[in-house]
Amino acid sequence: MVIEDVTPIVDGGRYPVKRAIGSRVDVGANVFKDGHDLIAARIVFLGPGDPEWHAVPLAYDFNPDRWFGAFKVDRLGRWHFGIEAWPDHFATFRTELEKRVQAGQDVRSELVAGARLLERYAALLPADIARRARSAAVLLADDQAPLDARIKGALAANLAQEIGGPLSALEVTRSSLYEVLVDREEASFAAWYELFPRSQGTRPGVHGTFADAARRLPEVAALGFDVIYLPPIHPIGVTHRKGKNNATKAEPGDVGSPWAIGSKEGGHTAVHPALGTLADFDAFQSSARELGLEIALDFALQCSPDHPWLVEHPDWFFVRPDGSIRYAENPPKKYEDIVPLNFWCEDRERLWNACRDVLVFWAEHGVRTFRVDNPHTKPLAFWEWVIREIHARFPDVVFLSESFTRPNRLKALGKLGFNQSYTYFTWKNSAAELRDFFGELTRPPMNEYFRPNCFANTPDILHDYLQHGGRPAFRIRLVLAATLAPVYGIYSGYELCENVAVKPGSEEYVDSEKYEIRVRDWNAPGHIKQDVSRLNRIRRENPALQTLSNLEFIGTEFDGILAYRRYAHDNQLIVIVNLDPHGAHETMVDVPLDRMGIDEHEGYEVVDLLNGLRYEWRGRRNYVRLDPHERVAHVFRVSKHP
Amino acid sequence: MVIEDVTPIVDGGRYPVKRAIGSRVDVGANVFKDGHDLIAARIVFLGPGDPEWHAVPLAYDFNPDRWFGAFKVDRLGRWHFGIEAWPDHFATFRTELEKRVQAGQDVRSELVAGARLLERYAALLPADIARRARSAAVLLADDQAPLDARIKGALAANLAQEIGGPLSALEVTRSSLYEVLVDREEASFAAWYELFPRSQGTRPGVHGTFADAARRLPEVAALGFDVIYLPPIHPIGVTHRKGKNNATKAEPGDVGSPWAIGSKEGGHTAVHPALGTLADFDAFQSSARELGLEIALDFALQCSPDHPWLVEHPDWFFVRPDGSIRYAENPPKKYEDIVPLNFWCEDRERLWNACRDVLVFWAEHGVRTFRVDNPHTKPLAFWEWVIREIHARFPDVVFLSESFTRPNRLKALGKLGFNQSYTYFTWKNSAAELRDFFGELTRPPMNEYFRPNCFANTPDILHDYLQHGGRPAFRIRLVLAATLAPVYGIYSGYELCENVAVKPGSEEYVDSEKYEIRVRDWNAPGHIKQDVSRLNRIRRENPALQTLSNLEFIGTEFDGILAYRRYAHDNQLIVIVNLDPHGAHETMVDVPLDRMGIDEHEGYEVVDLLNGLRYEWRGRRNYVRLDPHERVAHVFRVSKHP
Repeated sequence: MVIEDVTPIVDGGRYPVKRAIGSRVDVGANVFKDGHDLIAARIVFLGPGDPEWHAVPLAYDFNPDRWFGAFKVDRLGRWHFGIEAWPDHFATFRTELEKRVQAGQDVRSELVAGARLLERYAALLPADIARRARSAAVLLADDQAPLDARIKGALAANLAQEIGGPLSALEVTRSSLYEVLVDREEASFAAWYELFPRSQGTRPGVHGTFADAARRLPEVAALGFDVIYLPPIHPIGVTHRKGKNNATKAEPGDVGSPWAIGSKEGGHTAVHPALGTLADFDAFQSSARELGLEIALDFALQCSPDHPWLVEHPDWFFVRPDGSIRYAENPPKKYEDIVPLNFWCEDRERLWNACRDVLVFWAEHGVRTFRVDNPHTKPLAFWEWVIREIHARFPDVVFLSESFTRPNRLKALGKLGFNQSYTYFTWKNSAAELRDFFGELTRPPMNEYFRPNCFANTPDILHDYLQHGGRPAFRIRLVLAATLAPVYGIYSGYELCENVAVKPGSEEYVDSEKYEIRVRDWNAPGHIKQDVSRLNRIRRENPALQTLSNLEFIGTEFDGILAYRRYAHDNQLIVIVNLDPHGAHETMVDVPLDRMGIDEHEGYEVVDLLNGLRYEWRGRRNYVRLDPHERVAHVFRVSKHP
Repeated sequence: MVIEDVTPIVDGGRYPVKRAIGSRVDVGANVFKDGHDLIAARIVFLGPGDPEWHAVPLAYDFNPDRWFGAFKVDRLGRWHFGIEAWPDHFATFRTELEKRVQAGQDVRSELVAGARLLERYAALLPADIARRARSAAVLLADDQAPLDARIKGALAANLAQEIGGPLSALEVTRSSLYEVLVDREEASFAAWYELFPRSQGTRPGVHGTFADAARRLPEVAALGFDVIYLPPIHPIGVTHRKGKNNATKAEPGDVGSPWAIGSKEGGHTAVHPALGTLADFDAFQSSARELGLEIALDFALQCSPDHPWLVEHPDWFFVRPDGSIRYAENPPKKYEDIVPLNFWCEDRERLWNACRDVLVFWAEHGVRTFRVDNPHTKPLAFWEWVIREIHARFPDVVFLSESFTRPNRLKALGKLGFNQSYTYFTWKNSAAELRDFFGELTRPPMNEYFRPNCFANTPDILHDYLQHGGRPAFRIRLVLAATLAPVYGIYSGYELCENVAVKPGSEEYVDSEKYEIRVRDWNAPGHIKQDVSRLNRIRRENPALQTLSNLEFIGTEFDGILAYRRYAHDNQLIVIVNLDPHGAHETMVDVPLDRMGIDEHEGYEVVDLLNGLRYEWRGRRNYVRLDPHERVAHVFRVSKHP
């Protein structure tokens, strides 16, 4: 027998597929054999720590070679599943018998064969069913009994339900086993907010503390975010410290980049003294938790030249011919304030363990989400190993890959176990780009292993579109991120529409927080906090916005207006966004009524969840006009009239 | 390092890809690693019987993660290939050095590092190159030498060409190995003609002989065919022999179906006495060979109730409860004149060997092509085994799968090793059907393992389209088969436009040759032998018609006219076929000039190879009109003006 084209799998089973806890794994497979025999098949699966395999049957719908089934994953961790198939002799016997009887053929010989078959099954069945199978066998073979009764006995449905398992283990064909990585709901649905704790003070130039940051938490919670991501909170090196606006030389008082980790005050498991103590961090985390917020830490595997590891383990670094330790570079670019680790050094086992133990340290302090800095510059094998190590002890940990490298490498990080990944979203601004980009993200194979976390900006990426599109551009990109991606985020300042680059053509912010303290007026005029809180509430109230794969782009007659449908059972949304931050546009939108269960001739109601306005629509083609200075988008919930 | 998405492979490498001898295997792979290092990669491959692996380099074109290379397969048999990749330290060093020099950086330390690297390579290189590497190393590290000379030495291109292999076997990442089944050119390009030898006599009702069949050979050769396929030539059973038109009871003198193999005169290795002796068969084969024709035999693994195996090996068959041997059936249909073999019987090893030995017997008599009857009713595992067994001894044997089962099973037979397969071609008659059907056949994954043999009719399939379309229908389907598929065939009688079914709604011929002797007038009025010979000559003269994957459907404004482009380097054909056998139609055809290297404003010449007429065309849109009672198609060869 052949079992092939099993879904969902990634790269022939080399990598796990991902599912959030509580979801269903819908399995499909081509199963077939030679000849005319009927066959049966099942999914076998094993949850983490299960002592025994479970089985659920597979069935085919229309195409007899394509079989379907499903199982639910209700615990965190690594699950395994496979397919088993075998010839179903009893079903074959019954089906053929039925056809022969209908054709008026003499079936006495077949009945005797059926009786023998039942006896073979009886030997394998639990006692009570075996008894019934044996008594049926006696009837089938009884040439004194009326033929009609014998045939009825053979075709009895209740017996057929019990019989049909494999007659012998030798008859069972097994597929390979495939892995499912089951993680928390927050891995697949969450709104992120990035802030620099040191900028959360109230006086310009004064280093903020965890206590200052804690005072910001209620507002962030009120905006509807789930996760607050902090850039590294560790001591910052002084050697080759970067100055404001990435100056090669720091001036006195310059605070340096948080990614230049380590000083005499400690390394990856220490807290920057200016932020507070480890206890202060714990307290900050508790405050967040009380507000329903989760703190995500940065995991940046690099060191400042002052990191304790340089003294303790100089062999973990690259040494130049003159004996000095090599700083990070991508020639001709140099990053003198950080030194890279040599993951393939002789002492790599200890180094890899030390990196893992950093994660363990923070996990023991309650941290359950790590945003991993530039993972594509470290070995893929290291990530595959360390993620497994951490998940084995803390299966609820979420790893976010911060990588904007070439597509194959970006995808490889998702495949090997990162729960979420940064994406090229910021660079996808036209309707065609967005359709292509989300088209790939939301369909197999990519949606099986890659969870996009669509940040609308980051401290490194202030896209040209935002620089020149003004407040409407920020509102447009916010709606897109929040309604196209179940996981999205903004870096603080976005809600204030901060849009000044360090120089023309650059995506870097002027006076970037990466190199200095930025104290802001969070209520500065022109902010879009109302948009943020409204969209986050809409996301929470509408299941259609909570999963990745239920996205369908729909037609508009003007291509500068993007429209898409998101759906989850009854929850049907149509989002329509004017992508031009400068001008008003109008278009007809083609609502796919056939796929929404609405009759062409029936009216239906659409409610704009952004402002509560209701419209009565009818038919497929409907008119919209969006002036970005008033409203940039509609987020319509569609309801049939009762 | 990661090596993924290797092409060409089938089902992750589970099955071989197929290539005709002399062709090139174009290999692609995603190859990448973390970080900024440059990498190198190569194909390693092993031909059948090769003592050592060969290697050819891979290179990337535009996308640095996608690598390409190729190797030629110049011997029959099973080849293996894989990908190896490693970090190219010397190339990384040179590239980074170049960037540093351009940026005006101090590179003295890098030069010393480069010298050490060269010394490490030198230890692995052949003596003469090692000497040059070492002397370069001395220069690079020489702080007395002018810096300019040291840099030039490091960047010297001739050194770089020699250096760049793996520094250590531990640094090499290897893919899995993948198989390539290399077969004869005739496996991928041939025209087939099916005839019943017993019908080749000259007097009605008189059993023809091999000698009679030999007299037909010159005509078949003149028609341009390459392979003559004979239905089974073995003794035919008498028990439950079928009568004319598949009557359940044969009348005296009825000859029975050749597929009811075996009688007291012998089984699968015997020749029907009425056809002649084994020596007569050998002589017939020799006559064919002299005319450049190859004889294909039928391999039908079933027996008449009179086959010697039923006496010698009753345990090879299915036994009913009453002890009788089960005849073939697909309830409620019964085939009482044949009994199936039980391929999973206790004595299966001997049975499988006996089946293989039938093939060996005929292969030793010079037969190199077998059309296999209904392989999907026998175990896939058997076919995978027996094809390997035969190919190990006779790598030039071609197996054609005669299976019209469901798509997955049909494809599985191609995957496991059949060189060619019958297809659903006869049932694809509209433009949309033909585009979909050949679209799948000519693209990956299917074109890598499945070679369609598109018979326009068979003794079992006289399609409704032929029954009701008259002579034009036969001409249309002939053009389609001959110009869409590099391997195609007709069953004799097609050239006479025989189109009477046994009853309405049936695809069976009336007075089918399967059950009786049919002596024909091969020059009966209305024959289309001129079409046949012309098309076969066109196929031989135009490389564009000799491979499968170079097919592109092109636009026509009237969908009842199908147009497609076939191409092989300079040989550019445009085929335009009116699919309606009843009426004349006209259309504009959209010639894809951009892909043919012809300027939009340039004129070009098209010659209809069917009748030699020349036309001057200009631009993309061109007019055609086809009246099926005059001509059904154009087969244009397109030439640019010199």
